[in-house]
Amino acid sequence: MYRTHTCGELRLSDAGKKVKLAGWVQRIRKFGKMTFVDLRDRYGITQLVFTEAMNQLLEEKPLNREYVIQAQGHVVERSNKNPNLPTGDVELVVEQFDILNEAKTPPFTIEEDTDGGDDLRMRYRFLDLRRPPLQRNLLLRYRASRAVREYLDQQGFVEVETPFLIKSTPEGARDFVVPSRMNPHQFYALPQSPQTFKQLLMVSGFDRYYQIVRCFRDEDLRADRQPEFTQIDCEMSFVEQEDVLQVFEGMMRHVFRQVAGVELPDPFPRMSWDEAMWKYGNDKPDLRFGMCLHNLKVRNQVHCPGVDKTGFGVLDQAETVLALVVPGGAIYTRKQLDELTEWVKRPQIGMQGLLHIRCQADALKSSADKYLTQERLQQIQQFCDAKSGDLILMLAGREDRTRKAAAELRLELGERLGLRQKDVFKPLWVLDFPLFEYSEEESLPGSVGRWVARHHPFTAPRPEHIPAMIENSPLIPPGTDYQDHPYAGIKANAYDMVINGQEVGGGSIRIFRRDLQEKMFAALGLSPEEARQKFGFLLGAFEYGAPPHGGIAFGFDRLCAILGGSDTIRDFIAFPKNNAGRDMMLDAPAPLDEAQLKELHICLRKDQN
Amino acid sequence: MYRTHTCGELRLSDAGKKVKLAGWVQRIRKFGKMTFVDLRDRYGITQLVFTEAMNQLLEEKPLNREYVIQAQGHVVERSNKNPNLPTGDVELVVEQFDILNEAKTPPFTIEEDTDGGDDLRMRYRFLDLRRPPLQRNLLLRYRASRAVREYLDQQGFVEVETPFLIKSTPEGARDFVVPSRMNPHQFYALPQSPQTFKQLLMVSGFDRYYQIVRCFRDEDLRADRQPEFTQIDCEMSFVEQEDVLQVFEGMMRHVFRQVAGVELPDPFPRMSWDEAMWKYGNDKPDLRFGMCLHNLKVRNQVHCPGVDKTGFGVLDQAETVLALVVPGGAIYTRKQLDELTEWVKRPQIGMQGLLHIRCQADALKSSADKYLTQERLQQIQQFCDAKSGDLILMLAGREDRTRKAAAELRLELGERLGLRQKDVFKPLWVLDFPLFEYSEEESLPGSVGRWVARHHPFTAPRPEHIPAMIENSPLIPPGTDYQDHPYAGIKANAYDMVINGQEVGGGSIRIFRRDLQEKMFAALGLSPEEARQKFGFLLGAFEYGAPPHGGIAFGFDRLCAILGGSDTIRDFIAFPKNNAGRDMMLDAPAPLDEAQLKELHICLRKDQN
Repeated sequence: MYRTHTCGELRLSDAGKKVKLAGWVQRIRKFGKMTFVDLRDRYGITQLVFTEAMNQLLEEKPLNREYVIQAQGHVVERSNKNPNLPTGDVELVVEQFDILNEAKTPPFTIEEDTDGGDDLRMRYRFLDLRRPPLQRNLLLRYRASRAVREYLDQQGFVEVETPFLIKSTPEGARDFVVPSRMNPHQFYALPQSPQTFKQLLMVSGFDRYYQIVRCFRDEDLRADRQPEFTQIDCEMSFVEQEDVLQVFEGMMRHVFRQVAGVELPDPFPRMSWDEAMWKYGNDKPDLRFGMCLHNLKVRNQVHCPGVDKTGFGVLDQAETVLALVVPGGAIYTRKQLDELTEWVKRPQIGMQGLLHIRCQADALKSSADKYLTQERLQQIQQFCDAKSGDLILMLAGREDRTRKAAAELRLELGERLGLRQKDVFKPLWVLDFPLFEYSEEESLPGSVGRWVARHHPFTAPRPEHIPAMIENSPLIPPGTDYQDHPYAGIKANAYDMVINGQEVGGGSIRIFRRDLQEKMFAALGLSPEEARQKFGFLLGAFEYGAPPHGGIAFGFDRLCAILGGSDTIRDFIAFPKNNAGRDMMLDAPAPLDEAQLKELHICLRKDQN
Repeated sequence: MYRTHTCGELRLSDAGKKVKLAGWVQRIRKFGKMTFVDLRDRYGITQLVFTEAMNQLLEEKPLNREYVIQAQGHVVERSNKNPNLPTGDVELVVEQFDILNEAKTPPFTIEEDTDGGDDLRMRYRFLDLRRPPLQRNLLLRYRASRAVREYLDQQGFVEVETPFLIKSTPEGARDFVVPSRMNPHQFYALPQSPQTFKQLLMVSGFDRYYQIVRCFRDEDLRADRQPEFTQIDCEMSFVEQEDVLQVFEGMMRHVFRQVAGVELPDPFPRMSWDEAMWKYGNDKPDLRFGMCLHNLKVRNQVHCPGVDKTGFGVLDQAETVLALVVPGGAIYTRKQLDELTEWVKRPQIGMQGLLHIRCQADALKSSADKYLTQERLQQIQQFCDAKSGDLILMLAGREDRTRKAAAELRLELGERLGLRQKDVFKPLWVLDFPLFEYSEEESLPGSVGRWVARHHPFTAPRPEHIPAMIENSPLIPPGTDYQDHPYAGIKANAYDMVINGQEVGGGSIRIFRRDLQEKMFAALGLSPEEARQKFGFLLGAFEYGAPPHGGIAFGFDRLCAILGGSDTIRDFIAFPKNNAGRDMMLDAPAPLDEAQLKELHICLRKDQN
């Protein structure tokens, strides 16, 4: 036993006790003949006092930052209590101590805030993990996983472990693969998700399955996307959409209550995909603030007469004109407005410009005064429900791009106005996604373009849309508009859970009957043979009595970051990879030696183009 | 909502209720105008009754085995109650039903016992998993994982997820590797265990870590060894061996209590490695029965005069003579004894023969009567503490092989005598393993042969053996016997948990101080540079304040099999691989297409020799 207590445990009621502590030296301060040492472990910090007699020993065995020591002595009440520390009422008067291990001076400070740069901290991740914020993050992550398990267990879910060495599928993102030594020239793949396994477990009758499980995607990495990530993966049998939504918003309420002490709404608000796109410009609206889009003109349909036939090409020629109202924004300076204009012109946003209307008490002033009469400006103000003192911002262009830009601008303004608070949580369900997307790049015989699945091809349509799917051909005859095709209106029986503008989970009710599944494959242009080749054993399994089922998967890394009020997923993963997919600490990936390659029956490809 | 209750839920108190059930058709029986259907789900089986009126409907929508149906009606008390079913007091009189999905006739029966062969069941694993024994196994596995988490959580352990895409190391078993697309000609490795990460987490101050985690080893597969397996991985800081043993035998008591309703002893018995080898012939003794080895002669040292200078070459020339006593075995027939002799002569055992002594009331009768006088036989009987009616079996040969054979023979006899009961659990700790093994194949300059680490090179010696290690050179000078070298007696601060003759877990206190670690590397013939190359970042981490720490890892698949009273790990894994490392259901591994290989910068090696 190296210790009788942890460094976070001692209280005033322990005064007088003889104790032994062990931990890391956080700080050393000398006051005359006394030395004070802050001793740290996972549980907290306790102040050690080396009195004059002990001080001599300290000179023989000098301490330094991050030394691991063991100290024995009596607990006494502090004269100058530290109310910021749970142990701040007491200190340990050291009577005996040992240096258990020395430490080189760390390359950055191990404190709440550090002076280390990103790369250095990644390389010395084991030291960065000593810092209180990262310790808190990983402990939060642990509490979150416990809360998830606790809830799902109460709901009758069973965790079943699914394999990691599986088969590569041509669908979806790229697989990471593993050459087989025992089966030459054959490869396993690492799972992008346990999707097929959880559906098989429903066929097996497990009824309610979950797993907190690592998944792998070999995608080009964007900021804060990891090649391996953790998913809360769930599936239920004999359920309809409503059952799934209730179970999993219940889970999220439980997790937020347990981990963050926050009560989420009961029930969660729900919004159709159409409404989300119309009002927020994207399918994961941040509901912490309003500032909805105003749809002045959409796909050449004018909703606000103020922008109809203005004589101003920017508006008249635009397929779509959208507006945002910035409350109190009429006081924005010319410079601020120019800066916002530059912001929307950046390539990531890609707009041509930004029109504005200042709603002042006496008049409406626009950047397009030449074309927009006071009457038009009033019509726009009225349409947008803007008040005196507000600023109206208008974007014009093709619908998809303009909507996307307006959504981004809304988030940016929300950020600047401080409306996206870290400790406010606004969840919702987004429902009724289109089941299909139109692709003009691929065609089927007798069709101009074709339908592609928005989700995976086992996603069921909404029950009321099944007849439209069964009864109609998926072909889009030449000379017709795909938007008028019956399939354009078919909605998926799918759902996304969104919190604070981030998609934290998504899933669907699955197709489990053969006739509908065959229709789906036909719509996607897959012959029964091709379908069987791609989804072989799962389709086979479905022939032996598949129950109606549906499920959902949550991105656990992101959920933890949201719970911790952070945007940085990486800070909630113990050993993350950098943006090039490298582990800086391990220096992985790394070359293999020739013997290993030979054993695996592979060689390195010379032509690196 | 497809159901109001599960198929395991209805009781007599529900009689009169209108309910809806959904599940699989297990059995259909017709009695005159009535039809009885057993409806099955994960929770149980409920009997459905189709009365005469409904029977007509059944003719229009005929049911078959494994059809998924939904049935609605009233719960009534059964006249012929079935006491073997929790729902056996009631039945559901069907008033309405729907076939949710049809099913092809399964290729084997979905019952407690099945008629399907191994291969067929592996290929249709999703159907085999419907059978009650496999459902029970996976539910047991889930309960076991919950019990583990529950206990470790109470003990202050934190689950931390470690990466799967790591760096290949030249030590240990073969790694599975993953070519990197973004880092051409470089490879990740899948972890054989999170060993280095858990030690890093101790350096990071996480104090108590655990993880239930998948591990990977690309070894040649033996029966019931899987390329991917699950480990309960644990590590603690500021502990000595005693602390670790107490925490983890506590865990095992908790798990057995929760999952199997079994009380394991408190404390667990402990046995040194020397004693285990001496008394049981191996380091994982099955303590469900006695029948210890009797060491008549060991490495030419005679312990029982009965076998000294007998004139019988088999005994006199043997380095070691061991005996086992079969209680009541004097009645074994000639044929039975011949069969046992053949058994020890099989190549897996590799003995030349088996001597026996029948201890009969009137006389001792031996297969070597010519050399073994009655006096000698009495000396042997006395040494072995054999009673009248017992049988003494003797093996002779080189110590290692003879001990191994005697251990195998002991287990075989225990099995035949029914002494290895599935529902009896005998745990123990095996301690004080040798830290080093002698290798005559490799040598260091100035040494004849050299020492190799029995465990990994971070395993600490027992504290009292540290001086012997620090103060002595690892070199074995020519002309000296390695068995007399001080390193031969150094014991590791390591521990294995054994239950019923199976190693369920093992671990050690780690070396955390640089001087000792350097001595260890020197003993293993690694220069500081070589050591740094092999264990780079971990050694680096140890320089920044590593606490004393130790840990353990349990094989979770095997633990579940033991808890379930089975020898077959595969039956406790949802989707196992066969002995060739193939997933028969997925048909994985499988070839990749050329485009994928190209993206990964690898090609297939032509020379397949």
